[in-house]
Amino acid sequence: MRATVMFGAGDVRIETVPDARLIEPTDALVVVTRAAICGSDLWPYKTMEHNETGRRMGHEFIGVVEAVGTDVRTVKAGDVVVAPFLYSDGTCLFCRERLHTSCSHGGRWGWNGVDGGQGVAVRVPQADGTLVVVPVGTDDARMPSLLTLSDVMATGHHAAVASKVGPGKTAAVVGDGAVGLCGVIAARRLGAERIILLGGRPNRIALAREFGATDVVTERGATAVERVHALTGGFGVHSVLECVGLGQSTLTALSIARPGGAVGRVGLPQEESIPQALLTFFNNVTVGGGVAPARAYIEELLPDVLEGRIEPGRVFDRVVRLDGVPDGYRAMNDREAIKVLIEF
Amino acid sequence: MRATVMFGAGDVRIETVPDARLIEPTDALVVVTRAAICGSDLWPYKTMEHNETGRRMGHEFIGVVEAVGTDVRTVKAGDVVVAPFLYSDGTCLFCRERLHTSCSHGGRWGWNGVDGGQGVAVRVPQADGTLVVVPVGTDDARMPSLLTLSDVMATGHHAAVASKVGPGKTAAVVGDGAVGLCGVIAARRLGAERIILLGGRPNRIALAREFGATDVVTERGATAVERVHALTGGFGVHSVLECVGLGQSTLTALSIARPGGAVGRVGLPQEESIPQALLTFFNNVTVGGGVAPARAYIEELLPDVLEGRIEPGRVFDRVVRLDGVPDGYRAMNDREAIKVLIEF
Repeated sequence: MRATVMFGAGDVRIETVPDARLIEPTDALVVVTRAAICGSDLWPYKTMEHNETGRRMGHEFIGVVEAVGTDVRTVKAGDVVVAPFLYSDGTCLFCRERLHTSCSHGGRWGWNGVDGGQGVAVRVPQADGTLVVVPVGTDDARMPSLLTLSDVMATGHHAAVASKVGPGKTAAVVGDGAVGLCGVIAARRLGAERIILLGGRPNRIALAREFGATDVVTERGATAVERVHALTGGFGVHSVLECVGLGQSTLTALSIARPGGAVGRVGLPQEESIPQALLTFFNNVTVGGGVAPARAYIEELLPDVLEGRIEPGRVFDRVVRLDGVPDGYRAMNDREAIKVLIEF
Repeated sequence: MRATVMFGAGDVRIETVPDARLIEPTDALVVVTRAAICGSDLWPYKTMEHNETGRRMGHEFIGVVEAVGTDVRTVKAGDVVVAPFLYSDGTCLFCRERLHTSCSHGGRWGWNGVDGGQGVAVRVPQADGTLVVVPVGTDDARMPSLLTLSDVMATGHHAAVASKVGPGKTAAVVGDGAVGLCGVIAARRLGAERIILLGGRPNRIALAREFGATDVVTERGATAVERVHALTGGFGVHSVLECVGLGQSTLTALSIARPGGAVGRVGLPQEESIPQALLTFFNNVTVGGGVAPARAYIEELLPDVLEGRIEPGRVFDRVVRLDGVPDGYRAMNDREAIKVLIEF
């Protein structure tokens, strides 16, 4: 079958790989109908050392179940399913606590003999724990939004939850990428009265305003911190959604939290330590978040997508076929596209 | 009047200073009956540059109100009162949110013309917001425990709250100082099923066990982390109370939290950044805490002290008169004493 393989920085190819097939009795075989390129796929795209074997890519996909193993109970052939960006058994100690990202039997797509999502089919381990059936046809207009539940919308929601967004509060979203934009949706959905977007690109700002951003700060660094303080009576914001992960963005995020506030980190940290140890201490600022347990959030967010209350699929501003994936990586890396949807 | 003044590292003297007196209409004048030396007083004791003027010391005291300003409503002459380690107005935005440490009109004892607590009398600014009346005589046997509400017991409680201790959970307390020992009391009080103390000195371990510690790890660094994991089925603990503030202890604290767990920092950070940015991210570990809003906790903890359910005053293992304060600093710094009580 055809699937996306990365061989090194900037070197993404569509290759013929062994067909996906059932191996374990807990597996499902899913034929992919839509997948996506993630901002986190750009980290290896920028830095990966050349490797002859290559690395299977993709962790956001939606598709149709073609077959299931003998132990699978909750999905069946013909079901349309969305997969979260990590697989998980749904039954271990951590899954029961809704922290599926720490599942004792879970793992990552594209690693350890598991297929990536940017290919025509995927063997899904722990299918009962991993997959969520969506009650719509594969050509439904809500498909892009449903696909975001696999990662970016769930991740934006995690940032909002971890930063304790609630009715009447002021939130700031650091980053205008797809996750940041979904963070704006999530902050509004949880009742934030005011949502300040920190980001600079005009098309993204426009979308953020449609999603609910009430203020925009286009400056960076110390100037951005000053601007947020000026917008909030000198106090800073209750909730900061850190949706980038760079040292500079993390420093900004920690510097704009109000005393007693919270920062929800969902951008993959690019530094070994968290800055502002003293400021956060004196201000009793909580730092939470991490890898979003998307599987825990899909059921919560699904009704809002199905009933049209949120439209996170609008973050996709380019559609490619599988052969167009390498150029999709390039377009996202060059900031030509916010997020690329792959149609099969 | 006589009061404690620090002139530099290791140089603590009892000096004659101007008598404390009412200045603002919101002040109270309190004659101190008991005060304490704090672990945080040892930071300047170790590092302060020599200064001819000196610095007034002490932020934990209990005493009797001698006079009040014309605007004071909630305390009166003759009341026995305990003061938290920061003063606060009780009415600002942050005080109303129970974050008195960020009070818009608050401040520190011993700074900006305000007396320190290790002296015979103190002018208390914002008396209505700051002081809490305790319904006992000054010679009551519970006085040492009541005095700990000004700082160490409230701080241990803050660590337990910030690390989300609750019934059935496993907690670890990093540090066997007075705050760590109070953290053990707080963790037990909030229902922790298992409490692991990380600390090494036999007399402190014995007290910690009486306070409710179920396990003790005397190792440090990576070995301590291994030991805690071995004690918890490889998972780590739900709640970590960081009661030291050094780089090493913070690293240990962050390394022993279970996925989905929380670290409550109350040791004054001695480093500019928080380590383990990636581990805490992948494990969704929350880092909370900071300067304890003691004023918010005094009323909550007071009944437990008055009714004898907790006895945090047992952390005092040495009593001095005012003239003995310099030697009290030395004894705490040399680890001869856990915490020194000053009787007037």
